[in-house]
Amino acid sequence: MTTEKLVIDIKGWLKEAADFIRSSLSSELSVSQKSGRTDLVTNIDEETQSLLIKRIKENYPDDQILAEEKGYDSLDSLSGRVWIIDPIDGTMNFVMEQENFCIMIAVFEEGIGKLGFIYDVMKDELYWGGKSLGVFLGDQQLTKPKDLGLAEGLLGMNAYMFGENIHSAREIGHASMGVRVSGCAGIELIEMLKGNHIGYISNLSPWDYAAGLVLLEEFDFTYSNIKGTALAFSGREYFLAAAPKAYQEIQARFLMNE
Amino acid sequence: MTTEKLVIDIKGWLKEAADFIRSSLSSELSVSQKSGRTDLVTNIDEETQSLLIKRIKENYPDDQILAEEKGYDSLDSLSGRVWIIDPIDGTMNFVMEQENFCIMIAVFEEGIGKLGFIYDVMKDELYWGGKSLGVFLGDQQLTKPKDLGLAEGLLGMNAYMFGENIHSAREIGHASMGVRVSGCAGIELIEMLKGNHIGYISNLSPWDYAAGLVLLEEFDFTYSNIKGTALAFSGREYFLAAAPKAYQEIQARFLMNE
Repeated sequence: MTTEKLVIDIKGWLKEAADFIRSSLSSELSVSQKSGRTDLVTNIDEETQSLLIKRIKENYPDDQILAEEKGYDSLDSLSGRVWIIDPIDGTMNFVMEQENFCIMIAVFEEGIGKLGFIYDVMKDELYWGGKSLGVFLGDQQLTKPKDLGLAEGLLGMNAYMFGENIHSAREIGHASMGVRVSGCAGIELIEMLKGNHIGYISNLSPWDYAAGLVLLEEFDFTYSNIKGTALAFSGREYFLAAAPKAYQEIQARFLMNE
Repeated sequence: MTTEKLVIDIKGWLKEAADFIRSSLSSELSVSQKSGRTDLVTNIDEETQSLLIKRIKENYPDDQILAEEKGYDSLDSLSGRVWIIDPIDGTMNFVMEQENFCIMIAVFEEGIGKLGFIYDVMKDELYWGGKSLGVFLGDQQLTKPKDLGLAEGLLGMNAYMFGENIHSAREIGHASMGVRVSGCAGIELIEMLKGNHIGYISNLSPWDYAAGLVLLEEFDFTYSNIKGTALAFSGREYFLAAAPKAYQEIQARFLMNE
């Protein structure tokens, strides 16, 4: 019952948030830098986050919230029910392309991922699902992608890690069928769920991966930080998710080059 | 009159070719390697090319044809009217993703680009136009993107050139707002036409750039090989196309590192 209500609520809020973002595209954005020249935030990121947080607090006042923008970007623990939110994942694309960005929402309970939503706003494609529920694109259930090795598929990659060969990322990329860079974690995770890519290597914060992990888990993808241990849900970490065969091969290369 | 007939004919053939490609997606592909492990061709590339060449020969029997797959991949000269065709641009994406690939057709006359068509088959989006005609998405005329510098926009990039820093490609990428890698020249050129990306650096053959050049020229983008001289329309070359400001900055970096 609760799960059903959560899903209905979240789908409604995503639609409301996406309508707000789309309506903002015709007006001038207010863009600021965060950690540097290429790490941007806009007024629309912040207002979308406020909208989603308002809805959560109205409906689930006892829950904890972890979200990208100011005031919500850390938590002491994942106890109880926790919402993990990226109001606009791929802000650079939002600013430069006005497409190829996602809203992401995850619901965790006592540290366990229960529901995940990745919404490609401009394509109007909602990938969502939950523990023991399966993975869906809109109303259509997706089938689990094949388990492939590193040499058998395309690999989503953080451009900086690839370019600078951080932890052998460039060599790992060359060993795949090809590297793709979208600039949006949500889109990279969608590519894995669709079976388009075998994996994704990046440097991510909890709101970049939380929703995706719930969905990846349903399809038996393997994920961890690059040391092969559990993601911390705190701060930025080097991140690897891949089909089990590819994961083993990539992880072995990471460790070999420690 | 001739231009109008050409446009009508080409649009019809593109639709026919795209229907054929889409209908092939449910059957098993026959995939072969060309120059190496990651340079693929499928029976669908070859059959699509045959279909387009058949239509050209039926309707314009005196014209020359330059096309990616076997038997048509070189010409002695660009004299007369020349068709330059990539039946499936982004074959790796076609095989791995079943999306993010294009059909491209250009019509040149005495070496001058007259018409260009880039068709994103799975999105059903046709970018096309011609010398003094403008650039269109379907029926809608596009407006010319802003002229931006290297530090002001996203840059499409060939992953290998970026990873290996070929001709400083990695440093150039880092100086932009971010690098994107789609694995499809047609999609990269579309991103420029839409104003999403300021430029594209890659290693391309004539059928990868011919249609795009006609459209880029209409929007005053600058393009050349990385020595800054005219593209040869023969063999593979390092390729740069960018907004005029970004082009100057990128070209200066190429020459500095000669």
